[in-house]
Parts: sequence; structure tokens; C-alpha cells
Amino acid sequence: MSDIIKVFAPGSVSNVGCGFDILGFAIDGVGDEMIVKKNDQQRIIIESIKAYKDLPTDPKKNVAGVAIQTLLDDLGTTQGFDVKIEKNIKPGSGIGSSAASAAGAVVAVNELMGKPYSRLKLVGFAMKGEVVASGDEHADNVAPAMLGGFCLIRGYKPLDVISIKAPDDLWCVVIHPQIEIKTKESRALLAKEIPLKKAIRQWGNVAGLMSGLYTSDYALIGRSLEDHIVEAQRKILIPEFDEVKLSVMEAGALGCSISGSGPSIFALANGRDTAKVVAAAMDTVYRRTHIEYKIYVSKVSESGVRICK
Amino acid sequence: MSDIIKVFAPGSVSNVGCGFDILGFAIDGVGDEMIVKKNDQQRIIIESIKAYKDLPTDPKKNVAGVAIQTLLDDLGTTQGFDVKIEKNIKPGSGIGSSAASAAGAVVAVNELMGKPYSRLKLVGFAMKGEVVASGDEHADNVAPAMLGGFCLIRGYKPLDVISIKAPDDLWCVVIHPQIEIKTKESRALLAKEIPLKKAIRQWGNVAGLMSGLYTSDYALIGRSLEDHIVEAQRKILIPEFDEVKLSVMEAGALGCSISGSGPSIFALANGRDTAKVVAAAMDTVYRRTHIEYKIYVSKVSESGVRICK
Repeated sequence: MSDIIKVFAPGSVSNVGCGFDILGFAIDGVGDEMIVKKNDQQRIIIESIKAYKDLPTDPKKNVAGVAIQTLLDDLGTTQGFDVKIEKNIKPGSGIGSSAASAAGAVVAVNELMGKPYSRLKLVGFAMKGEVVASGDEHADNVAPAMLGGFCLIRGYKPLDVISIKAPDDLWCVVIHPQIEIKTKESRALLAKEIPLKKAIRQWGNVAGLMSGLYTSDYALIGRSLEDHIVEAQRKILIPEFDEVKLSVMEAGALGCSISGSGPSIFALANGRDTAKVVAAAMDTVYRRTHIEYKIYVSKVSESGVRICK
Repeated sequence: MSDIIKVFAPGSVSNVGCGFDILGFAIDGVGDEMIVKKNDQQRIIIESIKAYKDLPTDPKKNVAGVAIQTLLDDLGTTQGFDVKIEKNIKPGSGIGSSAASAAGAVVAVNELMGKPYSRLKLVGFAMKGEVVASGDEHADNVAPAMLGGFCLIRGYKPLDVISIKAPDDLWCVVIHPQIEIKTKESRALLAKEIPLKKAIRQWGNVAGLMSGLYTSDYALIGRSLEDHIVEAQRKILIPEFDEVKLSVMEAGALGCSISGSGPSIFALANGRDTAKVVAAAMDTVYRRTHIEYKIYVSKVSESGVRICK
């Protein structure tokens, strides 16, 4: 068994419009790279967090550190690890930055320990890392980063994660304005009570989205990508949200909403060509602002954390 | 083309636990029989409503009459019809009594007029009949009575009905205590605002139920059949609800909740044998009461309204 491993952990879009707190999917092509190595010091050492130097390297405060420690405690071992993280997703992006690190870290350690746990079990450990970032145990980024495709988190007590294969030609476009919104702040915006009528509309859309995913009905996926609960409250933190949404819908997107708690905005599209037109529409809107941004065009990723050979 | 037709319109279970106001399924073996005949009087005559004589025969107040008139108005014809209804479902049962009559009536008339409309289109006409019974246009009984299987009503503006085939061995047991609860009264019990946290749990379960239906995952269907919003408020109108639920779960039911707005209670089961044990458990609870009741054991019906040859 090797003492060192390199993994790639993908970014992810959670909430997915109507599926607030219960749905997420993995995206291709953007994510964290991590090199994890056994050490003989019986502790976790976060060696470098390339690109974002203000992230904590104290393993008790770092999402990867906390996630690994949870796994090691469960396994009852004092084995130590050196963790090098190359973060390609800016923290507070809304595309699962902390989840990628947490998921990648526990997959790497699990491999080095001889794979005692299933991927599904690892989701639970990675969730503990998420607490450090958001104050809440949530799995709607961690699960897709771990398992790939769409993930439904039906419930938490006990954790009930259901994998859903994405339709073959479902593409995702994400624009990430380089401003930071903390999940904690964004969560504080939400009303604690909602009208029953809106809730009914929301679960009608959630059911429609599920149906669309299982039957590859792209039009139904599009119709169902409505959020009448969260989007209106949170979009105020995101510059040009309405403008972006309007443009991408005109450009042929199936639907568009906030990725996670923002500031990233995602759109889904049927096929690569439409996805590129959608990306161009986003670009046109943001080019007029003075905000730096990145745009990612990718298929919904079939796989979660990958071991790099 | 014949001038007379006989149809069978099945009962249905709406809400289905977590899917309040958006889900329903058709049940086999119980429903209304209707004979519809063209007349030359340019009006709708409700001839007999066998078994329940206090239902209105005024076509403007009768669900079948209103549904037919809506179809005829859309078609722009003054053709008249005689309608004989043999109601086998007691009104106010919670198993789609009015929906069966409305669905059966418009299917019959559509056939006699040379099938100008699709079944999906007929749902819209039948919904207008439902208004007479419940005060609300809703399709969660009408759609399954019309189309069979499970139906998702994703939204109403415009009406968006999605058919879902039930897993092959999904059985339904319904107990119908012969007391009447009007949908209007039952609806008045519901709080207009609900906690966001409960709503999230509910749409997690809705998504889980959809996933279970599409993948024939009976255990997931069972786990998802939770309702944390409506059941607790409405069950107070239903004698022995908690007792029935407890017994059927012990008897191996996948899940159990209120059918429609009650008083009927439904349970789902994997396979006929379990369904029979579940039915026996319901029977044991209600035999101790002084309330009359009927118990129906059937598969989820694959078909909606049937033309009787």
C-alpha cells in the first residue's frame, strides 16, 4: 500500500433552484487537488493551501483537518497525515469549496488506510468538516463532491443520501463573481416561516425536477427549476443576478438560480452548444461590471472525488 | 358512433403522505360506474345517483354536470346528455369520490363526441367539476382517476400533470370509516404558515418518494412516506388514526397516512400478501369501534377511467 496519494475533488452546485438544502450535483473541470501522505507524528499537518493563504492551517479549524480527524477517531487510530491542498475554488464561492476539500481529504485518507469505509459512509465524516465552514452539518455539497452526479439528501437523522444519474447531455454553466458571501450570512437572510402555498409550489417543483432527471425530460427539468422561497431573499447579495438570469434564459438555458448560498449563479442547459451560448450571455452581463469573475462550462460530473494516478 | 357508453372511473388516493396537494394515485376495484347517453334536449340531465340520494342532480351543482358543461362549452356545442351514475364511493370519503364522477363523465362525453380531446386535456375540464365539491380547482384526484398510476401535479398555471408508472408490486390498502369529512372543513384546519425547517424535510421526502417510485425502491418509498405538515393537524378528525397507523406499520406496511382530506386512511405495501396482513390489522382496530367501515385492498391501478365494453 502506498503512503502517498493525490486526489481531485470536484466543485458542486447545491440547492439547485427548488431543492433548497436537499439537492446538489457535481461539476466537471473545477475542483481542489490534494496530496495526502502518511506521517509518523500522530497528527494532521495542513502543509500548504496554495492560492488562499487566509484559510486556517490549524487542523482543528480546517475543514479537511476536521473531516480527517473524524474518520481517524471512528477508526480508532492515531496515524498522522500531511495534507497539501491546492485550492482552485475560492472559499465562499457557492460552488462547494469547503465540501471539495472535506470530501477529497477523507477519500485520500480512506485509500491510504486500506479503504475501511464506503463512499457513502465517508459523506458523514466529510460533513463534520463542513461544520467548520458553515456552522451547520450539511451534505448537499459534500455528497455530490464524494459520489458525483446528482445527490438527494432526503434526511439527516439518519443520513439518507440517494444518488441520481444526470441525463446524458445535461450541461452546467456557473459564473463565479469573485466576491465572498459566507454561508452563515446568507442563511441569516432566510425567513423562518414560509406560506404553505409557496411550500406546496416548491415541493411540486422538487418532484418535477426529480421526474425530469429520471426520465431525461429536459423541458420538465427547466420548468421545475423555480425557487419561490430562497432566491428572492438571497439574490440581493449578488450583483446583476436578475440581469444574468434574464440573459441566460433568453440564450436558451433550461433554468437558472443561485448556486449554494451564492454569489455563484448556475444555469442548466441541454447540450454543449447551448451551454456555450449561455456562458457568453453571462459574460456579456458581467463584462460591463467592475467585478472580477470566472465562468465554468461543464457537464454534470458523473464521478465524485477521483484518485489521480 | 354509438350514442351510449358505459365507463368505470376509479377511486384515488391524493396527497400520499408528503405530497400534499401535488400527488395522487388511482386504486383498482373501487369506483363509480356511469352510463352516459346523448339526448336531443340540448341539456344535461343527471338521471340517477344510485346509493347517495342527497347528491345534487341539478347539473349546475353536480360535479359530473359541471365537468361535462365545461367540455361542451369549450367544444362549442349544445349537445345534451343523460347521465346515470352508480356511485360506489361515498361522498366525503377521501378517496376521490367527486373526482371519479367528474373524470368518468368527461371521458364518456369525449368518446361520444368522437374523441376531440386527449386525456390530459380532459383533466382540465374535470377539475372544474371538483370546484363544486371542494371549492377549489385541484387535480390530485382527477388526474389519477383519468390517467391511472401515480400523477404529479407540478403546477396549475398552466396545469402541468406528469404520469408516473407505479412499481409492479406496489399495493394499497384503504380503510374508509363511513363518516363524512368535507374537504372544505379539513382544509380550514391547516395553518397558513409553516416552519421552513419542516418544509425542507417535506420536500426531501417528496424527492425521496419520487426517486423510490422511479427506481422501484420500496424501502425508500416507505421512508419517504412521512408528512410533518398536514397529518398532525388533520388526524384529529379521524377516529383511531394513530392506532391504525401503528398497527399497519407493525404489520409490515411501507407507510401510512391520510387519504386525501380523510377520513380514509391508506397504507402502501410491497406485495399482495403483506397488503392482506395490513388490511387485517386495520380491521382489528376498527372492529373494536362502533363505526361502520369498508376496507379496500388493491394494486395501484395502471389505468384511469375505463370504457366498459
